[in-house]
Amino acid sequence: MAEEYDRHGRLAVSLASFYGGKLEIIPKIPVRSLEDFSVWYTPGVAAVCRAIKEKPELSLHYTGRWNTIAVVTNGTRVLGLGNIGPEAALPVMEGKSLIFKYLGGVDAFPLCINADTPEKFVEVVKALEPGLGGVNLEDISSPDCFKILDALRESMEIPVWHDDQLGTASVTLAALINSLKIVGKKMDAVRIVLLGAGAANIATARLLEKAGADLGKILLVDSRGILHAERYDMDELMLRNPWKYELGLRTNRDRVEGGLPEALKGADVLIAASQPGPGVVRKEWVRGMAEDPIVFLLANPVPEMWPSEAKEAGARIVATGRSDFPNQVNNSLIFPAVFRGALDVRARRISDGMVLAASNALADYVAPERLSEEYIIPTMDDWEVYVFVAAAVAEQACREGLARNPLSYDEAFVRARKTIERSRKILHSLMAEKIIKPIPKVD
Amino acid sequence: MAEEYDRHGRLAVSLASFYGGKLEIIPKIPVRSLEDFSVWYTPGVAAVCRAIKEKPELSLHYTGRWNTIAVVTNGTRVLGLGNIGPEAALPVMEGKSLIFKYLGGVDAFPLCINADTPEKFVEVVKALEPGLGGVNLEDISSPDCFKILDALRESMEIPVWHDDQLGTASVTLAALINSLKIVGKKMDAVRIVLLGAGAANIATARLLEKAGADLGKILLVDSRGILHAERYDMDELMLRNPWKYELGLRTNRDRVEGGLPEALKGADVLIAASQPGPGVVRKEWVRGMAEDPIVFLLANPVPEMWPSEAKEAGARIVATGRSDFPNQVNNSLIFPAVFRGALDVRARRISDGMVLAASNALADYVAPERLSEEYIIPTMDDWEVYVFVAAAVAEQACREGLARNPLSYDEAFVRARKTIERSRKILHSLMAEKIIKPIPKVD
Repeated sequence: MAEEYDRHGRLAVSLASFYGGKLEIIPKIPVRSLEDFSVWYTPGVAAVCRAIKEKPELSLHYTGRWNTIAVVTNGTRVLGLGNIGPEAALPVMEGKSLIFKYLGGVDAFPLCINADTPEKFVEVVKALEPGLGGVNLEDISSPDCFKILDALRESMEIPVWHDDQLGTASVTLAALINSLKIVGKKMDAVRIVLLGAGAANIATARLLEKAGADLGKILLVDSRGILHAERYDMDELMLRNPWKYELGLRTNRDRVEGGLPEALKGADVLIAASQPGPGVVRKEWVRGMAEDPIVFLLANPVPEMWPSEAKEAGARIVATGRSDFPNQVNNSLIFPAVFRGALDVRARRISDGMVLAASNALADYVAPERLSEEYIIPTMDDWEVYVFVAAAVAEQACREGLARNPLSYDEAFVRARKTIERSRKILHSLMAEKIIKPIPKVD
Repeated sequence: MAEEYDRHGRLAVSLASFYGGKLEIIPKIPVRSLEDFSVWYTPGVAAVCRAIKEKPELSLHYTGRWNTIAVVTNGTRVLGLGNIGPEAALPVMEGKSLIFKYLGGVDAFPLCINADTPEKFVEVVKALEPGLGGVNLEDISSPDCFKILDALRESMEIPVWHDDQLGTASVTLAALINSLKIVGKKMDAVRIVLLGAGAANIATARLLEKAGADLGKILLVDSRGILHAERYDMDELMLRNPWKYELGLRTNRDRVEGGLPEALKGADVLIAASQPGPGVVRKEWVRGMAEDPIVFLLANPVPEMWPSEAKEAGARIVATGRSDFPNQVNNSLIFPAVFRGALDVRARRISDGMVLAASNALADYVAPERLSEEYIIPTMDDWEVYVFVAAAVAEQACREGLARNPLSYDEAFVRARKTIERSRKILHSLMAEKIIKPIPKVD
């Protein structure tokens, strides 16, 4: 396993050097001769400027703004690498932008920001709104990420998304919805334990409530044990992390105390997003769960316990963050599609309702006859799933009055499909022409 | 003439709507299957991040940063439209980015900034340095543009360029160098009148001095007449526009007073970058110039006087900013090449020496047998000129010790040629495949 990871890493470094990055910015209009510049640039362009000056929202119609987002980070919590700074975060932002285009047809470019404080980060991103169709926040440490997301969502008139919160929560919810179908339990009745109280699980708890879960039955477990309204550190949390503090007040109605073993006793679901394992979750604790346990082990690169161990301990359904096990809970299933749908209707923001719509569409994409313990969620290979999720998100935006450019479900579906197909076609065409060089042999 | 402009404008609006902007962001690496994401994204990408964390400058090697610049504006002085705001400036920034790619092979994306003060503008741009290979400032009102350029050049370790200053000055200088060859006069001996004291002419005056002109013989004429060290508004200028103030102290050694007619008496060169004409410069004033007058009439869309009038008044050489007259003094001849050269050697900044090298290379590209009153400067049609200018800029950066990645002239030449050819090939290939749709018939 470690060897495989080393091999990927070596290859990544060689190819980063060979290709000099992963993205480029090209014209999407024809240039037949330099005379065309008199339309794309001066003097013709002045008429486009004047039209937008009259009505600034037209910049979402007359420019690429409607399909352009920034993938923004300060590099304070990158993958499993921690605070490596904005320069070192750039390869990840490039990869994310690549996925945005390839799977969602979204034009995404990385912005790596030097900002000492969340306030400065917010100020910089806010200042860039006039040219952006949306913002995808990425790899920002907690709790700053909550403050930044909330501030930007409130103050900007374009979709703002923090993938480590909303993307993870949305795909986790989709996996849970389908898992509950299999075991025949109801969202509002299950006891859910969330292990880890970082960006992902705090957002997941909030989204579970919107999806109908009973927050009082949810237990949030961090390095200090099970959170509850009278835990010794609640005063400190109130100041330092009000988002977690609020969950401390509202989860765990019965004030269960202790650690993960105590939390898991009789629980229906474990959603672990804590630290790389194995050994973080033990078999005997899973054995203490209720009938038909659902166990999500989402730490990367190594899940909190091996799936085989979880199965041996009686877990009925096991999911991880990895592609080499069944049931990969993978943000990449969600974020390209959410933005595709939101951008196509020129949504003013991405509401919780739109996030739920994405989760439901992703879950529903798995046909009942296909659904099983080993297949609770689609894989990335099936690119049509993005079209379905995008259309559902677009439809929900219209329903909530958040769309500047309302479309019917069918219109949104056709548009999303065309845009995503086109972006794949560009890449495949440039590969076929060898303008994008084939991957060289590397040791 | 006006009809022609209207036609371009109508077409520009129709096509802006049809294509939805001018740029897109695509992968420049192959994706054969989703398995490749394990190299472009997690887990492989972590190794690239770690390498950059060790040595942040490697971000210029392992990511697209080396070839990526932002085209940045606040929309305070867009084309001839004035302060139309950042949203309305976006179509121009897209056009500029298009030219960067098509003629220079540079990956450029627009950033339209909401910033009340030059200080805030500087703060936002500076914060974005970790992901950028360079910054092209655009369409910022004077004198803020001087303050912003100086502050960013001082504080950033990547090339920063304000095209309305440096680009215009550089191409103007190239045109003047060749004009002087034709009339057989020397740079250090000529009397030059600059009409207009905005970003372009203030930068041109500064560059002319570096190119060997005698600043004491240069007269700067603005709406208040000829500038000189004792003009009534010098105290005000000292506070409001120290850049112009400094030129007030150092130009016009003889303290000539009056307006443009007085300034032009006996002058060898007029460089007008003031306001759209015709009628801003009059025939009788040109008649008062020295033998073989050189007259640059750079206002857009209509030059300060018609070229035919200037010729009738005795001008030996006439240049304008327009493509439909001979001798177009056009920034687009300079900026794509300057960045191509600077980026290829990973230059820390763009020095005055590099700007001069660009001007000289552009001037020298016109072979002596080709040089004439009607052909003092190449046209954009000849794309090889960009390669020559880029190589000269790269060589000068190396000579001044500003290159992180030094190259010989020949290496820089080959690299620039390959990169520019590739970017044209991408566009032509996507046009041939009709992935970029042909321009539709528009009324």
